[in-house]
Amino acid sequence: MKVAVVKNILEANQRIAAENRQAFDERGLLVINLMSSPGAGKTTLLEKTIQLLKGEWKVGVVEGDIQSTYDAERIGKTGAPVVQINTGGACHLDSNMVREALKTLELGNLNLLFIENVGNLVCPAEFQLGEHFKAMILSVAEGDDKPLKYPLMFQESRVLLINKIDLLPFCDCNVNLMEERARAINPSLQIFRVSCRTGEGLEGWISWLRGEMNKQGRS
Amino acid sequence: MKVAVVKNILEANQRIAAENRQAFDERGLLVINLMSSPGAGKTTLLEKTIQLLKGEWKVGVVEGDIQSTYDAERIGKTGAPVVQINTGGACHLDSNMVREALKTLELGNLNLLFIENVGNLVCPAEFQLGEHFKAMILSVAEGDDKPLKYPLMFQESRVLLINKIDLLPFCDCNVNLMEERARAINPSLQIFRVSCRTGEGLEGWISWLRGEMNKQGRS
Repeated sequence: MKVAVVKNILEANQRIAAENRQAFDERGLLVINLMSSPGAGKTTLLEKTIQLLKGEWKVGVVEGDIQSTYDAERIGKTGAPVVQINTGGACHLDSNMVREALKTLELGNLNLLFIENVGNLVCPAEFQLGEHFKAMILSVAEGDDKPLKYPLMFQESRVLLINKIDLLPFCDCNVNLMEERARAINPSLQIFRVSCRTGEGLEGWISWLRGEMNKQGRS
Repeated sequence: MKVAVVKNILEANQRIAAENRQAFDERGLLVINLMSSPGAGKTTLLEKTIQLLKGEWKVGVVEGDIQSTYDAERIGKTGAPVVQINTGGACHLDSNMVREALKTLELGNLNLLFIENVGNLVCPAEFQLGEHFKAMILSVAEGDDKPLKYPLMFQESRVLLINKIDLLPFCDCNVNLMEERARAINPSLQIFRVSCRTGEGLEGWISWLRGEMNKQGRS
């Protein structure tokens, strides 16, 4: 008797991620895997980003949640094409879930696709989905010690959006120390301080995104 | 050839949890598994709770983090006995990690033990550690939609501490709606609105804890 064993669940995930990536590249689509703790502001960032890019690029969203379609409904109101993945308990998206979700999106009509991961500062960082890069959000309300305690996500991300800076006067958060700790893990991290609620700082993020699109000849 | 398979990883976890529970009960120790998103205020709640119970009960803490001893050092400053578990990547504690950690605590000297789980609103809810009950913290900065999106944790918890209520004037959080959504999942949830930063509302939590200790004849 022979027992076949998938040695590494991450290897299997990686294979499908490469196929997703190829599908994105064939259509000239930039894809960003967006991660954070629950309630750090992922969906609000997407709402604002879609608004700010309106008439310029066609943005689509894959929404990942354990259950509910609450976030997909919020995105739907912006007019952007959106598909909801319910993981049914799993604390992160994997490449196969994304592959299934892509079947319901007209990828050829999009320039930019965000995949909003399940709110979790741990496991989503371990699973490639086929994205071009990972972006993460950290809210100042979470405290300046988070890079010390959840380093992998900071290491894997190309962009860190420090959100809710409008709350800084009311939190015990040293935002300079937060940045310093994040850069100690990942010196090339692109950091933006923003408030998705007030709009403060979002122009930096948007102009950086434009640069990324231009660089890759997508716009 | 026979292949032995652990059918259910949760079953194996459950067995060790029962052994932990027995060790707690033999010593008349009340044990609470404390869970939340990253940065919702678990360690600050413990610092305040230990202060408020000083001279009354002997409180110990098991700190769970992926890496670092930052939280254990904070607890150590209160004078409470503390042991740090580093999960080395795992996004939740399991009963075996707790069993190992208990070897370094003098359980017989304690009345109350908190196990601070890894910051994560998903997987910690699935793993029994041997605790008498689970308590969770939700910060108002995370938003009132969290019960809809992470229902298992609300279902499994006996207590919900809604923290950072000092931030309510500055957040788009409807705290009544947050409570209503939590109670829709778990009608018997004991809810306290607190600010661990200012101390507001903590007397309700402490007096409820006293009641639990009395009920079980532990004080």
